[in-house]
Amino acid sequence: MPATGIRPTIRDMAGYVPGEQINDPDVAKLNTNENPYPPSPKVFEAVRAVLTGDKLRKYPQPLGDSFRKVAGRVFGIDPDSILIGNGSDDILTILTRAFVPEGGKIASLTPSYILYKSLAEIQGATFETVPFSADWKLPTEWPLTGSHITFLANPNSPSGTAIRLNEIERFASQTGGPLVVDEAYADFAEWNSLKLVSRVKNVIVTRTLSKYYALAGVRFGFAIADPGTVRELIKVKDSYNCDVLSLAAATAAIDDQGYYADLRSKITATRGRLTVALAELGFHVTPSQSNFVWCRRPDRPVKPIFEELKNRKILIRYMNYANYGEGLRISVGTPAEVERLIRELKTIV
Amino acid sequence: MPATGIRPTIRDMAGYVPGEQINDPDVAKLNTNENPYPPSPKVFEAVRAVLTGDKLRKYPQPLGDSFRKVAGRVFGIDPDSILIGNGSDDILTILTRAFVPEGGKIASLTPSYILYKSLAEIQGATFETVPFSADWKLPTEWPLTGSHITFLANPNSPSGTAIRLNEIERFASQTGGPLVVDEAYADFAEWNSLKLVSRVKNVIVTRTLSKYYALAGVRFGFAIADPGTVRELIKVKDSYNCDVLSLAAATAAIDDQGYYADLRSKITATRGRLTVALAELGFHVTPSQSNFVWCRRPDRPVKPIFEELKNRKILIRYMNYANYGEGLRISVGTPAEVERLIRELKTIV
Repeated sequence: MPATGIRPTIRDMAGYVPGEQINDPDVAKLNTNENPYPPSPKVFEAVRAVLTGDKLRKYPQPLGDSFRKVAGRVFGIDPDSILIGNGSDDILTILTRAFVPEGGKIASLTPSYILYKSLAEIQGATFETVPFSADWKLPTEWPLTGSHITFLANPNSPSGTAIRLNEIERFASQTGGPLVVDEAYADFAEWNSLKLVSRVKNVIVTRTLSKYYALAGVRFGFAIADPGTVRELIKVKDSYNCDVLSLAAATAAIDDQGYYADLRSKITATRGRLTVALAELGFHVTPSQSNFVWCRRPDRPVKPIFEELKNRKILIRYMNYANYGEGLRISVGTPAEVERLIRELKTIV
Repeated sequence: MPATGIRPTIRDMAGYVPGEQINDPDVAKLNTNENPYPPSPKVFEAVRAVLTGDKLRKYPQPLGDSFRKVAGRVFGIDPDSILIGNGSDDILTILTRAFVPEGGKIASLTPSYILYKSLAEIQGATFETVPFSADWKLPTEWPLTGSHITFLANPNSPSGTAIRLNEIERFASQTGGPLVVDEAYADFAEWNSLKLVSRVKNVIVTRTLSKYYALAGVRFGFAIADPGTVRELIKVKDSYNCDVLSLAAATAAIDDQGYYADLRSKITATRGRLTVALAELGFHVTPSQSNFVWCRRPDRPVKPIFEELKNRKILIRYMNYANYGEGLRISVGTPAEVERLIRELKTIV
């Protein structure tokens, strides 16, 4: 099988492997932090409305002006500070290409989102990590210098923990270069970094509609950055990186904050029950500010638990990080899914 | 406005400027080669069907297996030779990142699709061009060596002309590195390069659903390459680069070849009338194998014609290429749009 001419940096990489996507209605899918509830009814209305016009055959708005206008109002930010993306992975890719030269350096805490390493590999950059402290805090001093980008997932995955704003501000002054605060899960958290963007010049915030807005299938994310930075990032993105259907869906979702506040209440309530039940079963559970929980066991390996759950059609995520060890990341599903998980876990552990 | 840390290669580039997107129903939009007819009714059905399930909240198929299966059957190719993309711009970006290192080289004929230059600039690569012959043929010898990728738009834009397969095969042996035959408009042409992929190891074909399939708003494209190459390209693409709605739309469109064959007949008939009428008005019109025509005037500058048409709410594309000169690219619209254009042109020229 020839693949002549592929760059060595690509050929040598393993490639990012996303969580398993299964379409079996019997499977409780608690492995990729999807929202267990449907998106706002207004999303469906908005997509149907697109179908009544002649928008499918025409190119979409290159910058997503309608989305930017609504998001600007909802979040109280300048629309020109918003960059639209085909999922926040697209945003992270654009940021990498804009800031990191081949042979450059990307930094991150660890354990964290494993895509950051793949982004470095594709760009031909080195990837350096610094461990979180035992209680998922930042190190007092940041030992790395010269990074072209530093990624901070906040709340972090797999831990579900969040760094406080004053700590992020201190961190931004230590990293020097652009600090990308990846807020994929921030909508579930008690605070977020949005206000830092206008105050701290090297902070860029990224968001996704895949989790809180229950639109993983639609692929929509965005960045909030200084407008001068956004103008440069626009050069790097594909001209029409978001389609008319996802733009309509995203705009409707962002505009229906009330609906999603209700979902958040449900999800955080279920998360509380899941956390207690796991602890009762002997798991060490990290208090979560996200729509998943991270749990470990000091007494036994957890991979067999993951596998036995899979046999019983419950899909969670088994993680094993170098220099850290293993654990299970469990998405907060519906109350019924979580009850089923707990019931099965009781017979397994 | 700070944009600290942006790579110089990005900062120095102007950025690709796509054709103007206007949403005024009074405007005859003949500037970005959209299909003047709606997509297949089955596309609308397929998108509506997605809305009845719970697919919006779940991640899509990372590789688009359902699309690949249908496209494999329709085109008679191995599904594993297909790479899905968020528009063919996404595909061209993935190819660039997979093959071209920073400081590398991208080559193209000229005049051709101006995005190729932007792709080189973003990647930090040099961009070299060789002129088409006066009648839009390839040079006998290919003077460039060491290119990491060569792009050949076939049919070409702005000319609408197509290079024959035996010439492409010869060209592939001359370029050495990967030859990407960008077949955005091939569905309107009398031949295409699909069969070369399995026969000529360095040929990769790219397609879009934006033109022939009337789905510019949906953002869907794909590449056909050796399966070994596709496996490497998958590492470079975003994990979920196509959403559930566009995947459903694209699959339904590809599966309804009969509907689109009818559209092609209409469009080529209108193209014929447009070509004759432009010639009667004193334009030099290049015979087109695409859904647009390229025309020039030896007797007068054409920018005023473009501008006067714009005043009259008819949008076409004015192009001016270094070392070549200017011309007008006119998309084949509906018969009514084309009649309106000709009527206005009669009063202008």
